[in-house]
Amino acid sequence: MKATVHRKAHFNAAHRLFIKEWTDEKNFEVFGKCSNPHYHGHNYDLTVSVCGDVDPKTGFVINLKRLKDVIYEDVELPFDHKNLNIEVPEFKDRNPTAENIAIVIWNKLREKLRDDLELTVTLYESQRNFVTYRGE
Amino acid sequence: MKATVHRKAHFNAAHRLFIKEWTDEKNFEVFGKCSNPHYHGHNYDLTVSVCGDVDPKTGFVINLKRLKDVIYEDVELPFDHKNLNIEVPEFKDRNPTAENIAIVIWNKLREKLRDDLELTVTLYESQRNFVTYRGE
Amino acid sequence: MKATVHRKAHFNAAHRLFIKEWTDEKNFEVFGKCSNPHYHGHNYDLTVSVCGDVDPKTGFVINLKRLKDVIYEDVELPFDHKNLNIEVPEFKDRNPTAENIAIVIWNKLREKLRDDLELTVTLYESQRNFVTYRGE
Amino acid sequence: MKATVHRKAHFNAAHRLFIKEWTDEKNFEVFGKCSNPHYHGHNYDLTVSVCGDVDPKTGFVINLKRLKDVIYEDVELPFDHKNLNIEVPEFKDRNPTAENIAIVIWNKLREKLRDDLELTVTLYESQRNFVTYRGE
Amino acid sequence: MKATVHRKAHFNAAHRLFIKEWTDEKNFEVFGKCSNPHYHGHNYDLTVSVCGDVDPKTGFVINLKRLKDVIYEDVELPFDHKNLNIEVPEFKDRNPTAENIAIVIWNKLREKLRDDLELTVTLYESQRNFVTYRGE
Amino acid sequence: MKATVHRKAHFNAAHRLFIKEWTDEKNFEVFGKCSNPHYHGHNYDLTVSVCGDVDPKTGFVINLKRLKDVIYEDVELPFDHKNLNIEVPEFKDRNPTAENIAIVIWNKLREKLRDDLELTVTLYESQRNFVTYRGE
Repeated sequence: MKATVHRKAHFNAAHRLFIKEWTDEKNFEVFGKCSNPHYHGHNYDLTVSVCGDVDPKTGFVINLKRLKDVIYEDVELPFDHKNLNIEVPEFKDRNPTAENIAIVIWNKLREKLRDDLELTVTLYESQRNFVTYRGE
Repeated sequence: MKATVHRKAHFNAAHRLFIKEWTDEKNFEVFGKCSNPHYHGHNYDLTVSVCGDVDPKTGFVINLKRLKDVIYEDVELPFDHKNLNIEVPEFKDRNPTAENIAIVIWNKLREKLRDDLELTVTLYESQRNFVTYRGE
Repeated sequence: MKATVHRKAHFNAAHRLFIKEWTDEKNFEVFGKCSNPHYHGHNYDLTVSVCGDVDPKTGFVINLKRLKDVIYEDVELPFDHKNLNIEVPEFKDRNPTAENIAIVIWNKLREKLRDDLELTVTLYESQRNFVTYRGE
Repeated sequence: MKATVHRKAHFNAAHRLFIKEWTDEKNFEVFGKCSNPHYHGHNYDLTVSVCGDVDPKTGFVINLKRLKDVIYEDVELPFDHKNLNIEVPEFKDRNPTAENIAIVIWNKLREKLRDDLELTVTLYESQRNFVTYRGE
Repeated sequence: MKATVHRKAHFNAAHRLFIKEWTDEKNFEVFGKCSNPHYHGHNYDLTVSVCGDVDPKTGFVINLKRLKDVIYEDVELPFDHKNLNIEVPEFKDRNPTAENIAIVIWNKLREKLRDDLELTVTLYESQRNFVTYRGE
Repeated sequence: MKATVHRKAHFNAAHRLFIKEWTDEKNFEVFGKCSNPHYHGHNYDLTVSVCGDVDPKTGFVINLKRLKDVIYEDVELPFDHKNLNIEVPEFKDRNPTAENIAIVIWNKLREKLRDDLELTVTLYESQRNFVTYRGE
């Protein structure tokens, strides 16, 4: 029997959407006020979903305590109260859109999970905008 | 790399569930107090989900500004503060159940999106009742 | 020792804001799309707050079971899935604004509670608009 | 046309995670404070999702009134305000993890639904931890 | 200038409402299924509100880091994943109603705060039932 | 009859807590990771509450359309997607704590409202931290 367990986490960060080689006008045209050079920020909510077999003894797909620790180490600690563009190396040459943040988080968590577990990451940039990435 | 972006929207509307050729008794038997001839209403919450390739340059599946505008034009403007049975032509001969409202919204948005994007619509009639439609 | 207990309830209803003796233009000017003659609707959320002494034996200000039953009888049953303007007599000559709905609910509940209990009613017309009435 | 309808429900219960044949130390090592022998509890939120064809006449996948009644009879009544380990027979020899509670609920509801309807159960143990089971 | 800062916290616990010297019948009559002798449980949400002068230098009423630590030490640590009736000494001879839990929390936190700060505690037993206590 | 109407609004912004004349060590000691010199950010939620007499004709305390416009002009437009420290003049010499942001918003809105209306501002920095200011 397979089930999916979901764990929510949270971090607050500043970011700016822009492409270095574009002019300010072009950046504003595509990214609007999200390209503000002085940055703006969000309370990011994260749902990490892990699908796999339910262990018949423990009744667990994965020990949530361990999942919580992995999320803390690999996402909350390096991202919380940070400026994503400046302080998080993965976004040095990658635009920190919700899509790209979800992909970066997925890649970091994927390495820490057993191969037989399927991983999905949902990142809420605000209550109205969010993104799901499944590694496809 | 494929991701799904989700955008929430909102409209308030009145509706009534009933089948014209049925008696009031039959309508009440099937639809209960939702068949009240004087109408009742809801704060409808809508989640529009669009799945597609992440543009390697911008980091966007779709520009959310554009998605927001399409939802405003095609859903919020024609549905908000309206009586769905009387004022929205799509429900002239279609019972405005949450299922049918989701289908109508999906059909309207489908026309406005590039063919390579997959569309899912989730419509909340209340916090306890909601419906998902994927065009299947 | 005094405490305040709060109980949430819910009803869905249709309404229209307008003043009978005003022209349609004047009504639209003041109430905007809320004056749509075909009605629109809301999922109304209600918080009923009762402040009083904590019974030293039971540890209750009021038995929530009883409060829940009173709210059901006096608010949910007569308001849920109704057209407030047409089907709820209190709004025959009273504009069903959130303010007035809160006042009507407060008046109905006030009669059913012991005199030493203070009553506050908060009515959510939507997640963004709500009203509090304390009988002042 | 296929759609998925979702209905939310709720119950409050006490539980304890542990494996009878393990020592207290081993149970604490694996289940942490969730293995407290005096029990702890949760407000469990449940989303039941049913996918099937939309009836072209009624516009319903399933009458939500009926779904609500089935959930009440088979989940809320036997689980609400209960000690899952002691009072719910399905957990006599099954650890009441969120995964196992979701599986037990799915099995109970599956029997009551038409064969052509697909069933998914999502169980929230808290706002941060939840589980999805689809009978796979 | 005075402001009120609010901090949310959370704990999961089991409890049972009953008066020792009453019969089971009397307890059931007053407390309903909340008097189940095998316990049930809740995800308790807590809002701690502290009102006082805004420090003109820091812009703080109170350092939220300190408030968070006090709540953790005095509420979350002793209450989380506990059976309130059996494991929390304050409820040995006090019925663990939401009112009484709020009062106990208020008393514990009051001792840790400067005298010039006003304290209010709001305890959510569920999303529908909650209680406010201000030490009056 | 007096009632209080509440209107919610929203803005996303970057900020940094620090006192210019303090060393980095002192700032970190008092403000923790909130003093990160590269900024971090939040989705700020705002509730504006206005208490006054209910107009016996319209049933309004204040036309919410007007209140919404004032909030948009005076808060959302100047604060949304901005760096509060750099781009909002009120925080040039004022630490942008939640308390101070609430006070600045209250002062701006106070000027736009009739004298007989009482104003309260609640600012959510995150779902766990928020502040209320009443002009006292």
